[in-house]
Amino acid sequence: MDSVRKPLLRTLAREPLWPPPIWLMRQAGRYLPEYRAVRAKAADFLSLCMSPDLAAELTLQPIRRYGFDAAILFSDLPIISWALGQRLTYREGEGPILPPVRDAAALAALRPEGVATAITPILDAVRLVRQRLSTEGFEACTLIGFAGAPFTVACYMVEGGGSRDFAATRTLAFREPMLFDQLIGLLVEATVTYLACQIEAGAEVVMLFDSWAGILPSSQFHRHVVEPTGNIVKALRQRHPGVPIIGFPRLAGLRIGEYVAGTLVDGVGLDTSIDLGLLAQTAFPPATWQGNLDPLALVAGGEALRMETDQILGAFKGRPCIFNLGHGIVPQTPPEHVAELVELVRAA
Amino acid sequence: MDSVRKPLLRTLAREPLWPPPIWLMRQAGRYLPEYRAVRAKAADFLSLCMSPDLAAELTLQPIRRYGFDAAILFSDLPIISWALGQRLTYREGEGPILPPVRDAAALAALRPEGVATAITPILDAVRLVRQRLSTEGFEACTLIGFAGAPFTVACYMVEGGGSRDFAATRTLAFREPMLFDQLIGLLVEATVTYLACQIEAGAEVVMLFDSWAGILPSSQFHRHVVEPTGNIVKALRQRHPGVPIIGFPRLAGLRIGEYVAGTLVDGVGLDTSIDLGLLAQTAFPPATWQGNLDPLALVAGGEALRMETDQILGAFKGRPCIFNLGHGIVPQTPPEHVAELVELVRAA
Repeated sequence: MDSVRKPLLRTLAREPLWPPPIWLMRQAGRYLPEYRAVRAKAADFLSLCMSPDLAAELTLQPIRRYGFDAAILFSDLPIISWALGQRLTYREGEGPILPPVRDAAALAALRPEGVATAITPILDAVRLVRQRLSTEGFEACTLIGFAGAPFTVACYMVEGGGSRDFAATRTLAFREPMLFDQLIGLLVEATVTYLACQIEAGAEVVMLFDSWAGILPSSQFHRHVVEPTGNIVKALRQRHPGVPIIGFPRLAGLRIGEYVAGTLVDGVGLDTSIDLGLLAQTAFPPATWQGNLDPLALVAGGEALRMETDQILGAFKGRPCIFNLGHGIVPQTPPEHVAELVELVRAA
Repeated sequence: MDSVRKPLLRTLAREPLWPPPIWLMRQAGRYLPEYRAVRAKAADFLSLCMSPDLAAELTLQPIRRYGFDAAILFSDLPIISWALGQRLTYREGEGPILPPVRDAAALAALRPEGVATAITPILDAVRLVRQRLSTEGFEACTLIGFAGAPFTVACYMVEGGGSRDFAATRTLAFREPMLFDQLIGLLVEATVTYLACQIEAGAEVVMLFDSWAGILPSSQFHRHVVEPTGNIVKALRQRHPGVPIIGFPRLAGLRIGEYVAGTLVDGVGLDTSIDLGLLAQTAFPPATWQGNLDPLALVAGGEALRMETDQILGAFKGRPCIFNLGHGIVPQTPPEHVAELVELVRAA
């Protein structure tokens, strides 16, 4: 199949395909027994992400099982911090742990010039996925590359790991705005390199995950989310015109339209809290919608899953849309519910 | 001062007072040395909430220090679950712990008829605060009673404590909608009793905290947030017409207007993520705005605090508004920054 005919690329070119293409955030994950089997082979999570063969295998597993319209590179948001030279470890069940970057010295120790080399194994994984998608006959499946958006990556780097509220990061952004701007600027540069390399290795779409965008007040939302994302989009369009970009400003709420207008992304990820009916009534700039089933409806299954899915499909009809979750799939999701969801959407 | 002349009551009657009245969510808290001194006197957090003298003292501390326009009863959201008969303990630094309510048997064990008796010490605290506000000369200070809104209280009850995502609660709401509706219905009844009793004991305004409202998808947001809150408002207005009600649907995002229109609250708490400029452009039903300074800007102080405060004051000008935070004050807040904020707002 010619790549311009792939469903995901058609909707991202604003064609209102019906039924809409479907893929799910974190579709390669712990809810799959075959994931857990591969996971057990790697010493730790970082080596899993940095093994081209294992990362490619994990990326492909959900495609083989469900025939999703997109594969998304198996990786993790803080990998770019590691590529910048920040030490990164994963403690089982605790997520990433990094030595916090909170002053000029820690910032100066980061090495943007090392990114292209550090990510070599990831690019090898991208190439392997593209090859195998083709050899395994998934010719309609689009490969999405991704990165954390600068603010969200900065959250992990400054906090030193995950957090409920990223208080240290937000306080630093207020207290030392120049330092924080420098960190964001450095991440813009690193992210452009990272995503451009993924495109050159075979990614057909790229997605920027800004999981923590919504915790910022408006002044900072513009400064640390909209502007840096817009700069990344502009730089990528110059280097790789025609490669669609999806942005996911989680919990942006009222500011979702400002995000799309200010970044010029082709597609926008909508989190679970976005009311599609209300969104349709706003003066929304043109962008393909992607979302936004509650991952817990997928855990629950049955009538709840059918009703929530129907509601989203109803709002999608006639628009360029991509069916997805509003947040990543959770480990306790029964794999058979995912199969049911794919059937529901394909039968729409 | 006649109670109808109090600044908070005037703004809640839609008078655009200038400068706007100010109080801060969680203004009685660990950031104050005098709080920590009183806290050390109680065996645990629950006994603190259930001691009329200590709870009243904590409620008054920030009024004495800063002269806020409102005192808010010192208490905690899961107290109503305890009043319903659910065992509640607090482990130091971990927040509330409850035996989860996840089936019909656990639901049947709750005793709404016991609420009025269980809350006696809290009502004594309300009476003490009103008396002391008067004897200590804080005649312009309004006493706010409060409760957790049904969905947020249900989150703690079903999950068995705090959580990052309340996955068990959200899954139960999808899987057993009838059971969940019953729990919400029982909480509506208990909350009406709880707040009506607080009003009868001297609370002049009541506020419903729906801290987790925003995690619900739209169908459930209407069912578990808007409808139950609207029912509480209606019941309270019948019993106590003229007592203003503030609702705080945290992270409601695009749905904030639907919340106000559907609940008919007098005031609406705006979280940090709400862009006041964008809100002003929406067809927003009439309600007094309350919010929405980032608590981390208050931690940072200095130029950031001044700029963020100015921006909010600029958006407030000419509207009935109450200056507040967009989320509760955090323990690491320097008390002198709070004093500076009060000065900034009063000098507006």
